[in-house]
Order: sequence, then C-alpha cells, then structure tokens
Amino acid sequence: MISARGIAATSATDPLVPWDFTRREPGPSDVLIHIHYCGVCHSDLHTVRGEWGTVPYPLVPGHEIVGRVASVGSHVTRFREGELVGVGCMVDSCRDCDPCRRGLEQYCEQGNTGTYAGIEAQTGRPTQGGYSTHIVVDQDFVLRIPDGLDPARTAPLLCAGITTWSPLREWKVGPGSRVGVVGLGGLGHMAVKLARALGAHVVVLTTSPGKVADALALGAHEVVLSGNEEAMRALRNSLHVIIDTVGAPHDLNAEMRLLTLDGTLVLLGGSPEPHPSPGAFTFITKRRRLAGSLIGGIAETQEMLDFCAAHGVMADIERIRPEDINTAYERMLRSDVKYRFVIDLEPLRQTTA
Amino acid sequence: MISARGIAATSATDPLVPWDFTRREPGPSDVLIHIHYCGVCHSDLHTVRGEWGTVPYPLVPGHEIVGRVASVGSHVTRFREGELVGVGCMVDSCRDCDPCRRGLEQYCEQGNTGTYAGIEAQTGRPTQGGYSTHIVVDQDFVLRIPDGLDPARTAPLLCAGITTWSPLREWKVGPGSRVGVVGLGGLGHMAVKLARALGAHVVVLTTSPGKVADALALGAHEVVLSGNEEAMRALRNSLHVIIDTVGAPHDLNAEMRLLTLDGTLVLLGGSPEPHPSPGAFTFITKRRRLAGSLIGGIAETQEMLDFCAAHGVMADIERIRPEDINTAYERMLRSDVKYRFVIDLEPLRQTTA
Repeated sequence: MISARGIAATSATDPLVPWDFTRREPGPSDVLIHIHYCGVCHSDLHTVRGEWGTVPYPLVPGHEIVGRVASVGSHVTRFREGELVGVGCMVDSCRDCDPCRRGLEQYCEQGNTGTYAGIEAQTGRPTQGGYSTHIVVDQDFVLRIPDGLDPARTAPLLCAGITTWSPLREWKVGPGSRVGVVGLGGLGHMAVKLARALGAHVVVLTTSPGKVADALALGAHEVVLSGNEEAMRALRNSLHVIIDTVGAPHDLNAEMRLLTLDGTLVLLGGSPEPHPSPGAFTFITKRRRLAGSLIGGIAETQEMLDFCAAHGVMADIERIRPEDINTAYERMLRSDVKYRFVIDLEPLRQTTA
Repeated sequence: MISARGIAATSATDPLVPWDFTRREPGPSDVLIHIHYCGVCHSDLHTVRGEWGTVPYPLVPGHEIVGRVASVGSHVTRFREGELVGVGCMVDSCRDCDPCRRGLEQYCEQGNTGTYAGIEAQTGRPTQGGYSTHIVVDQDFVLRIPDGLDPARTAPLLCAGITTWSPLREWKVGPGSRVGVVGLGGLGHMAVKLARALGAHVVVLTTSPGKVADALALGAHEVVLSGNEEAMRALRNSLHVIIDTVGAPHDLNAEMRLLTLDGTLVLLGGSPEPHPSPGAFTFITKRRRLAGSLIGGIAETQEMLDFCAAHGVMADIERIRPEDINTAYERMLRSDVKYRFVIDLEPLRQTTA
C-alpha cells in the first residue's frame, strides 16, 4: 500500500481537512504518480456537499491532476519514471462495451469509475481524488502532458478543457463556425480559448457588463449582453453551436433562437433542476437541436492536450495552497475566480510524516 | 383568373362553408391542377381557429393535395396535362437563400409560402388551400405522383408522410435502427409505416391500451404502454431515434431516457405551450439530443413519394364528402379517425356553376 496525504471532506458541511490514507499497491498496469497540481472544479464542491448523491466520507475530491510518474508496473509500456502526466475525471471503465471500444469511456455502459467517489475495482474501496500527494492509476487512464505546457495551468485542461473540447469536436467547430459561449467561468473561459484556437468566430453571451473586457481579453470576437434585447435580436439565427456552461436553471429559449438552421445548443452544466423548457416551435422552425455532453474520452483528451501544446492554450488560474481550499470554495460560490483555482500540492507533501 | 369553389373558414368559430373565389391566371411556370383529394391535417384546424396566429378570412385550408394537371404554362417542362400530381405544405419560397439552394425550402430564410394563409407573391393575396376544386402552383412546388399509388391514400403523404420521412432520413434511420414513435395519429401512423419500410425496428409508445392492436397492425414490432414503468425501464437506452408527434405539452424526460448514446428525440408537434423540460443530466450522461423538424423539402418529398410507390406505403384514411368537414374536425379533436380524413372534392366540383 502507498501512503498518501489528502485534503478530505468528512461531511457535507464541515470544512475540508488534511487526511492520511493509503492508495492501492500499484499493479502491473498501474502508474504511481506524485501529484504536483490539482484544479478545483465546481463538481468537487457539488459532490462533497452531497448535492449530487450519497458521498462516501471521508472523501478527497479533485479530478484535474498533473504530476510526475514515480514508478510504473511491469506491464506499463506507455509511461516511464519522471514523465509529466495528467489524470482527469475517470480512472477506469469496463473497456469492453461499445462506447469504451469507441474511445467514449465517459459513456461506459457499466458506468465509468470517477476519479473520486467511485468504486475502485481492484479494492472495492471508494476512489480518492487529486487533492493529494500521490495517486495510482491504470496506464490506460493516464494522459501524457506534452512539452511546453505549464503544469499548473494545464491541470484544468483535464476537466474544464476536455469538457468543452469534446462538444466543439463532436459538433465540428472549425474555421467558418460561429460559436456562442454562455457563462464565463472555468468551463466557459476554456470554451472561448479552444473555439478561438480551432478557428471559429466566438461570441460570448453574458449577463454581466463587468465581464465584457475579460471575455474579449480571453479571445472572444464579440460579447453580447443577454439582457440587451436589441443585440440578442441581431444575433438571431446566426450561431452554429452554443456551449452553455451554466449550471443553474435558466431560460433556454433566448439562446435557442440564436441558432442557425440545424444549429445545436450543448448543455454542459449539471443543473439540478430542469431549465424552463424551450418552446416546440423554436426547435421545429429551424430544425434546431438541444444536446448535452459529458467530459470526453481518453484518446480525445490526449488529442486536446496535444492541440493545446501546439496552440499555447492553457487555463487562466489562481494558485492556492492546500489550506486555502475552504476559502476557495466560498469564493467559487460567488464566482470570484479567474478562472480556476489550482492547488499546489507541494506544501501538503512536506507535512507528510 | 380561374374560378374555383372551396370550403372556407369565415371566422375562428363558424363552421366551414362553400365559397366561390378565383385563382390567379396561370403564368408561364404555373401548373393548373384539378384537385381530386385533399387530406385533413390538424394544422388546418389549428390555423382556421386562430390558434397559430392571425387568419386572413375567408380561408380555404388544406395542404395534402392530389389532383390532375389541367393545363401547364409555356415554360413548364416537368409536367403535362393529365398527369397525377401532388401539392404539399408550400407553394413558393425565395429559391435563393442557402436553405432553398440546398433543397430545404421549408426553412427558407425569407419564410416559405404556405399553401394556405400565406401571401401569394404574384398577386399579394392570401394563398388558398386544397379544400377546393382547382389550384394554380409553380411547377417547382408540384410533385409527381408515381404509378401504383392510390390517389386518395396518397394525399396525406404530402404532409403527414413528408413530415415523418424527413426526420427519419435526417437522422439516418435504416436497417439496424431502433425507432420509437410517440402518438398514433395521422403523423404517427405514417412514421410507423415509413420507419418499418426503411428497415428499422419500430416501437410504438402509447398511453392507450386500445391502440396496441392497431399499432401492431400498422407494422410496429413492439408496443409499449408509456404508463407501464417496468416496460419503460426495460426500454431505457435502447432507441436511436424517437419521432414524437404529440402536439400537447407532455413530459419529455421519460422519452429521453429511452434514447441510446447520441440518440435523438425529434419533436414534430407544434405544442403551443412548452413541454415540461427534460433534466440536464438526461442529456449530458448519454450525449442525447432533442430536436425539431418541419415538413420536408420538395426534392425530399419526391424521394418519399417514389419510396412509397416502391414499397406500397400509403396512408390509412377515411374518405369524406366536402360537407362532412365540420363533423370531421370535431372527430379529429377526439382523435376519432384512423388515421386521416381525406376529402373527395368531386361533389364540390359538381355544384360549381
């Protein structure tokens, strides 16, 4: 067994605290990773506060992991000691169903194994995430971090990056595409950067006049205030794809009307309550589509990392220390972060016995 | 000008009555058609009762038209006198925008010209539909009715047929596809027949135990009562496409859950109120899609008619006389029709002065 130290939630309401635990003994296909950085995702907060279901406390969240390979099992061919690697939202899947065979492990018919709060097949114990010093992951779920990417700024690519990349690719965004981005948080800011780097014309839709300058600085070609009826009317029937990253229920009709014939609005936010439903005529009159998308597959994640290295795309982050996590959660709830907190795990390692 | 007699609505509430009016003098590109049959669509009723907007009374409804060419203009090359032809929901469009150039005239950026209650470009008058003795239509919006199709049973193909055919083609239904059909009225019964003829496995979803035998007789492989939770659970994640023909607001969550990864639920019914919205997780966890579709293009309508002739697909109808239209509307409102009323216009012609 591998000793590790993490930052764990012990209940839905208590602050996260340091916690010493063990990782499974690495098997022949496993990679032992010393974690350097872990991004802080809204899902972490939803999960540890019990908003998405029962939680196996104590729980170490975190699924935007970057670190270095400390050792590899005897069957590991794809990684070697010292390499910079990443781990995202999944650490396992059945690998046998149709989606798994197609590289869509996130849609595994048996359910993928979440990086935290899943069930580790090898031990039957809950998986524990990346707010920790080490992790043991099967090589098939480890990503290579290409040279030239800053490790801390790369961590959020493992969830916020791939979650926006996957729909941009699925809905074939490229030169000539007009892409809307709704919500300018961790996911939204990556959607802007990735859509721009893919060659699309990017329009950010926001309710906040205060975000206009930021959106332009991130690479948006246009910013439209969604409360400005005239501007919204001028944008009607003009966007091929809209990436909606907002997790709270909101009226989708206004967004749907911005879509071209055959355009698609993609929901990425896990709103716990349904959005007020768009009217049937909004769909029918332009054959518009409303869809959802869940993170991305492993091969697609590697493709995204390679693309980001080639195009210099990384997250805008605020580095925090492990003990800052509870404050960070409070600030996330106020959307007071540009645009992702990333925990430097080195201080946690130094306090380990 | 061409004298015609129609059956017209004179207000949102009065019964339809015979009405003598004129059609435009046929121009060089026009086809004058003696109408033999016209199907009775729910849209006719919604429109004449003012449920879909302002109505230019008196109005002759009807957009499922089959008749014979009486004469053709000097530039007409595609039709000749005596041929059996059809006219559907549109009689014109701009023919210049991107959708028109792609054969998607129904999505014309200038708006297509409806067969009734549109504005006739040539005269500026309201268009008048197929519950009438004659109609004058530009050759580009006239369909050829292939040999072997019964004219009366073919009329509903011009709206109910193409409206279900278009999404079946857009979402690539064929051998190996599993297709759900919701609602077993005029559109639904055509969806069953067409999906079956395309080689799909067809599952009808209905609230009515009384419709099970009918659905099987129409060609469904399975019928599932949507109130049967166990049967609905067994069907989860198993349908590639669902064609939803129900016009009234209803919960879409139960249907969405039946879709496979990347499956699409297509709304065809023009529900005046939004459906209760499906939850975001239902979309996200399987990358499911909700879409709408509007009738179909002219080339696609011809393709559908040719397919129906090759496969012996026609509507199940109840023939009525012109004077039966008001009773037919009342029966439609009670869903008391298997599955489409078709007006025989010959009696109307015989009463013309």
